[in-house]
Amino acid sequence: MSKTINVAMIGQGFMGRSHSNAWGQVKRFFKPELMPVLHTVYGMEFENPKAFADVWDWQNASTNWEETIKDPAIGLIDIVTPNFMHAPPAQAAIAAGKAVACEKPISATLEEAREMSQAAEKAGVESFVWFCYRRTPAVALAYKLVRDGMIGDIRHIRATYLQEWADDSVPFAWRFKKAYAGSGAHGDLNAHIVDMTRFISGLEVTEICGAITETFVKERVVPDGNMTDEELRYSKDIKTGAVKAAVEVDDTTLFLCRFDNGAIGSYEAARQATGNYNRNAFEINGTKGSLKFNFEDMNYLEFFDATRPRPIQGWTKILCTNAVHPYVGNYWPDGHLIGYEHGFTSMAYDILLQLNGQTPTVPLASFTDAYNTQRVLEAALISANEKKWVNMSDVK
Amino acid sequence: MSKTINVAMIGQGFMGRSHSNAWGQVKRFFKPELMPVLHTVYGMEFENPKAFADVWDWQNASTNWEETIKDPAIGLIDIVTPNFMHAPPAQAAIAAGKAVACEKPISATLEEAREMSQAAEKAGVESFVWFCYRRTPAVALAYKLVRDGMIGDIRHIRATYLQEWADDSVPFAWRFKKAYAGSGAHGDLNAHIVDMTRFISGLEVTEICGAITETFVKERVVPDGNMTDEELRYSKDIKTGAVKAAVEVDDTTLFLCRFDNGAIGSYEAARQATGNYNRNAFEINGTKGSLKFNFEDMNYLEFFDATRPRPIQGWTKILCTNAVHPYVGNYWPDGHLIGYEHGFTSMAYDILLQLNGQTPTVPLASFTDAYNTQRVLEAALISANEKKWVNMSDVK
Amino acid sequence: MSKTINVAMIGQGFMGRSHSNAWGQVKRFFKPELMPVLHTVYGMEFENPKAFADVWDWQNASTNWEETIKDPAIGLIDIVTPNFMHAPPAQAAIAAGKAVACEKPISATLEEAREMSQAAEKAGVESFVWFCYRRTPAVALAYKLVRDGMIGDIRHIRATYLQEWADDSVPFAWRFKKAYAGSGAHGDLNAHIVDMTRFISGLEVTEICGAITETFVKERVVPDGNMTDEELRYSKDIKTGAVKAAVEVDDTTLFLCRFDNGAIGSYEAARQATGNYNRNAFEINGTKGSLKFNFEDMNYLEFFDATRPRPIQGWTKILCTNAVHPYVGNYWPDGHLIGYEHGFTSMAYDILLQLNGQTPTVPLASFTDAYNTQRVLEAALISANEKKWVNMSDVK
Amino acid sequence: MSKTINVAMIGQGFMGRSHSNAWGQVKRFFKPELMPVLHTVYGMEFENPKAFADVWDWQNASTNWEETIKDPAIGLIDIVTPNFMHAPPAQAAIAAGKAVACEKPISATLEEAREMSQAAEKAGVESFVWFCYRRTPAVALAYKLVRDGMIGDIRHIRATYLQEWADDSVPFAWRFKKAYAGSGAHGDLNAHIVDMTRFISGLEVTEICGAITETFVKERVVPDGNMTDEELRYSKDIKTGAVKAAVEVDDTTLFLCRFDNGAIGSYEAARQATGNYNRNAFEINGTKGSLKFNFEDMNYLEFFDATRPRPIQGWTKILCTNAVHPYVGNYWPDGHLIGYEHGFTSMAYDILLQLNGQTPTVPLASFTDAYNTQRVLEAALISANEKKWVNMSDVK
Repeated sequence: MSKTINVAMIGQGFMGRSHSNAWGQVKRFFKPELMPVLHTVYGMEFENPKAFADVWDWQNASTNWEETIKDPAIGLIDIVTPNFMHAPPAQAAIAAGKAVACEKPISATLEEAREMSQAAEKAGVESFVWFCYRRTPAVALAYKLVRDGMIGDIRHIRATYLQEWADDSVPFAWRFKKAYAGSGAHGDLNAHIVDMTRFISGLEVTEICGAITETFVKERVVPDGNMTDEELRYSKDIKTGAVKAAVEVDDTTLFLCRFDNGAIGSYEAARQATGNYNRNAFEINGTKGSLKFNFEDMNYLEFFDATRPRPIQGWTKILCTNAVHPYVGNYWPDGHLIGYEHGFTSMAYDILLQLNGQTPTVPLASFTDAYNTQRVLEAALISANEKKWVNMSDVK
Repeated sequence: MSKTINVAMIGQGFMGRSHSNAWGQVKRFFKPELMPVLHTVYGMEFENPKAFADVWDWQNASTNWEETIKDPAIGLIDIVTPNFMHAPPAQAAIAAGKAVACEKPISATLEEAREMSQAAEKAGVESFVWFCYRRTPAVALAYKLVRDGMIGDIRHIRATYLQEWADDSVPFAWRFKKAYAGSGAHGDLNAHIVDMTRFISGLEVTEICGAITETFVKERVVPDGNMTDEELRYSKDIKTGAVKAAVEVDDTTLFLCRFDNGAIGSYEAARQATGNYNRNAFEINGTKGSLKFNFEDMNYLEFFDATRPRPIQGWTKILCTNAVHPYVGNYWPDGHLIGYEHGFTSMAYDILLQLNGQTPTVPLASFTDAYNTQRVLEAALISANEKKWVNMSDVK
Repeated sequence: MSKTINVAMIGQGFMGRSHSNAWGQVKRFFKPELMPVLHTVYGMEFENPKAFADVWDWQNASTNWEETIKDPAIGLIDIVTPNFMHAPPAQAAIAAGKAVACEKPISATLEEAREMSQAAEKAGVESFVWFCYRRTPAVALAYKLVRDGMIGDIRHIRATYLQEWADDSVPFAWRFKKAYAGSGAHGDLNAHIVDMTRFISGLEVTEICGAITETFVKERVVPDGNMTDEELRYSKDIKTGAVKAAVEVDDTTLFLCRFDNGAIGSYEAARQATGNYNRNAFEINGTKGSLKFNFEDMNYLEFFDATRPRPIQGWTKILCTNAVHPYVGNYWPDGHLIGYEHGFTSMAYDILLQLNGQTPTVPLASFTDAYNTQRVLEAALISANEKKWVNMSDVK
Repeated sequence: MSKTINVAMIGQGFMGRSHSNAWGQVKRFFKPELMPVLHTVYGMEFENPKAFADVWDWQNASTNWEETIKDPAIGLIDIVTPNFMHAPPAQAAIAAGKAVACEKPISATLEEAREMSQAAEKAGVESFVWFCYRRTPAVALAYKLVRDGMIGDIRHIRATYLQEWADDSVPFAWRFKKAYAGSGAHGDLNAHIVDMTRFISGLEVTEICGAITETFVKERVVPDGNMTDEELRYSKDIKTGAVKAAVEVDDTTLFLCRFDNGAIGSYEAARQATGNYNRNAFEINGTKGSLKFNFEDMNYLEFFDATRPRPIQGWTKILCTNAVHPYVGNYWPDGHLIGYEHGFTSMAYDILLQLNGQTPTVPLASFTDAYNTQRVLEAALISANEKKWVNMSDVK
């Protein structure tokens, strides 16, 4: 007789698919004591949540998120709407005293993030933000190696999240509009690498020491079409209006920073870094060793152990597909690679563990944790826009 | 109103999990016109097929495979039992006029393979062997590039499938016994690379020009225990009997060969190639270019295009995670890696296409195709054991 | 009857060996019309220039550099003294109307660099700075590919020069003293990558948008010993004095910048980036393609050609060891790697070409060119120290 | 007062350049107690040995090798003529009681090799064969790691030497004629990898278990021209004669073998392995670890240490450019790559050490050692040609 928890997912889209897959697959690969039930998926009329529910085996489809969240049968609210629509359902879930999980970035504005963090803490509800890369086995291993002192004191963190999809020919879409997307590469990509490196290192940024934010392609073509404002705002490409529309978000954002232990960091997010499909990557240098990771080779962690005899020192490419590596033993036999989606499945399992009073394999990001990542992003923007150094204690 | 086909799976174990996952996931990522229904899973009493069915959402569990195969509701029989138990259910399925899919290697002996091939052809039923690596996007791309003449005439094929798990400390188990396992590294691993390179190149072996088969660890420790003979034969490790048992299968098998177009090949399977977890790898050199693949980096295909201007010639590492690459567009957005299991899901889709009269993305291996791979393996063993060259036309 | 030019080298040390090797080897691998004669090497008494001359086949040894420079037999002055001793012999050479080559960075202060640049231009003498990496075949190929439009308009430049030798245990030495070394990682390493990326891209920095300079190890142990001040200043480790001495130069310096075409850049030099022996590396992203280089794999250039059909796009790893690659044909047959020292030999050849009125394979850096690299370094330091954005037009 | 030894080099060509460079450079990077003097270079009239001597600083040029070898001033004879011209000067040198070094393969026929080995042993002269790759720092490190037991007992050796230069468009030349070249890829390339793996492993081949030798391009175009027979035989491309000439040597040779400790080996040499410029590569798997090397990345050795804790096991890519690595400390500071030519310089140093009664860094190959490598090559050819297993004790 296993315990169960009913899950309601608010939203669909790419992340809706990733989360549905995770909630469906978790029981096949893990044996959670608290078993998730795919109870209800919410979508807007035009999104046809019923069809989505059929594909992903949600028991119910809803077009009214307020009601869904209030439904006493539901134990966990999982939010996958566009960034600007994270706060309202999250606050509703907190108000209803329910556990709540939310896609990253936690919100479109820092103010919303702060309010979400404060509300969750005050209400004492469990909150989670889907920084799924923490559960890539190689990243979770990096976390453990740092905890075990394997790289000593950290001196350098350099992280990049480089993509190339936004070349000049890509048409205008909701994601180029600030009101809907919040930001561009910065919120989309830097959010991941700031969380990932804070998580692994345990360090906090104290100062932003310069930043650049840039939009290379200032205008993009707007194809003809007749969409409702609702369609446009929520998930579809913008097809109405003028021949060209102004891009309102960044193509790239870089910043330099200092950490609380004296280490130095550099971060870069880009959407026009030709040749980089999904280079979510970091290198961390410590006094005893170093770590390197690139999501394009997500099953590998590179480790340099400076305590080994010098003639055999080098970068060791660890293929993290052994049962001894975090999460891996639950999937396939040694040496069989897993992919992008498994980070979500592993995270679903860890959420279930935590809701059941058990300890997740590696820590999960709460709303407060995600708010602190958001503060770093905000500080970087202030630095870039006002051309000044920014002390993190001034960013609330 | 989609058409459906009821699937019965004969067997459980590692491959049972892989196939169950494929049949369950195919509807989420593809839109097959012919939709699979996970109707019945068969297992032996001690395997508890009911519990397996619960985890993987099979509608029924059976402990009588003969009845299951005869059940008129079932349209497709999928066989994942140990190698020596492939032929009986396969022949029963053919006799019942049903489509049949079987794990690789197709059988424990060449004779069985020949009979299965002949029976399927005579009965006119669709037959499939799960050479799942054909559907790794990088491998499917290799197939297409060869078809498009991108590497010209093939001169060299070198393939290795190297593992390291069978070190001296590994205890005795069913897989070291010839009666149950058929062979060791040769049938387990060379089967894959012979199929994969025949598939990609379109070439057939004409002569084996030397071979070595070796068992480095002659005896292995047998732990105490009291298992039934049935448990022992089908899926469990051997725990009864003497303190040490003789290993009856090969740790490694290598062979050299010639192909029908004059090309030269070398193959090696090993289980004690320290440092290699799952190096299922090939390199093919042609007059216009070359291809390289290693399953430990399964999302990449390396392509050398010798028709490019010389100063920029080099090995191009193609990250096969774009919607234009085979199968990829059905999973996640560009740049998001897939893993081992997706080869099975993609193959489930292609089986459904073929059963529905449609054309699979890349060709599927029939029993006859698998029989021809098995002939190459048999010829290599004859060469090694009798220390002689073997002409393929002498191996039936 | 070949023409000859007598060379005098001012200084010895590591760079003295590199240059001596280059002047000696150039005739063996190239066929310069203007042939160099290793006429005189200058060193201080304690350096024993006679012994050095014997090893490297210099015809004469001198301990008086002023006289050597004035010697009418000498046509080219080559300066390899410590940074703070570049300007005096360079100015003497210019005053004597002689061609002058100088190690990088051109000088210890920006003021000196400006004066050297102006003096050389005014006197109309040929001046060269040994940015040897320009002549790495892979780097020279990158230069040519950018000129040929192969990567389109440049959007991103990211460059790092990471080393690891300066860990906490390394004792104090002259190179940690500002008066002798000028700067630390910044002048030593960023000088190379600023020159290299300016050279390849043809772009100029317009603004520094933040920077960090840091000394992690504030004090280092000073071993006992009794060295003259002269020894200490010029080339030997500091062994006298107190138990610990304060480090006066940077361990690491990073900066962000904008280029004149709108591109964005990031630069980092470090001496404690554990695991990186000599990672002199860049990545340049353009609208049509990208380039990547790492000196630890110096025979390779990686090129991503975004104009290729999408299914076969990828990073092409070009092994630049073919006769068609710059300089390579002069050394060994195709496929035989060259090393660090050959950049110097190739540069010696290009200097001889230019002095003979011929065109070097790729452009050489003049004093003015090096001064402009030095301006960028100075601007970065101002940014880091004064915590502000710096417009390049304000740095003279 | 250093001791000196006068060297005479018999032959010129590519290897003549490599050796001249080594004899010239050795004094600059090492400090041999026994110092080499580049006394005389021999070449045929048409080769113009005087011009060669000028470039490489040989004191004398000779066109009579018999006289040169007899010259009492000469202490060491170094032979770099084509393979079929190794034995005569080597035997003359031995007869004169002089130390003799010879390029690889030691001779064109096994009989010559046996006679050279026997003659050198009987005369008690020092003999050396230029298997220069033993002195690549990464290879020498591999040798040391095996000696230190770091990989345990060896189970697998797989070695390839792949090139691509001999595509169908390459015209006929002396190297395609058996009388002059001895053999094709087999003698040229397999000689290196057989020596290298024998050297590193310390194992000897006991049986050849199959082999293939093939000439893909049976005929090649012969350009017009009028060369003397002498020119043609010794070093120049064949330009006279018929429109097409039959290729008499192999394009590729592969073989399988067993070693005296029970390990298994596979070897392949190829000249049409498109995309491989100089892939002189091996992988050795032992019970405790593995080693990998590829000359296209010659500064790296890959080491898998199976005794490390499992979660951090992986292939460590050792950049062998540290002063602790064999030979490296004599060249440039840590992290500065060396190239192909340095293997020769390091070998010249080791020859001088041995002639001076000192111990070389790693063992040198004597004529007897090279003869044993030649026996393996001969056995492989017998296996391929006669289609049978060959016991090494039958090959003398």
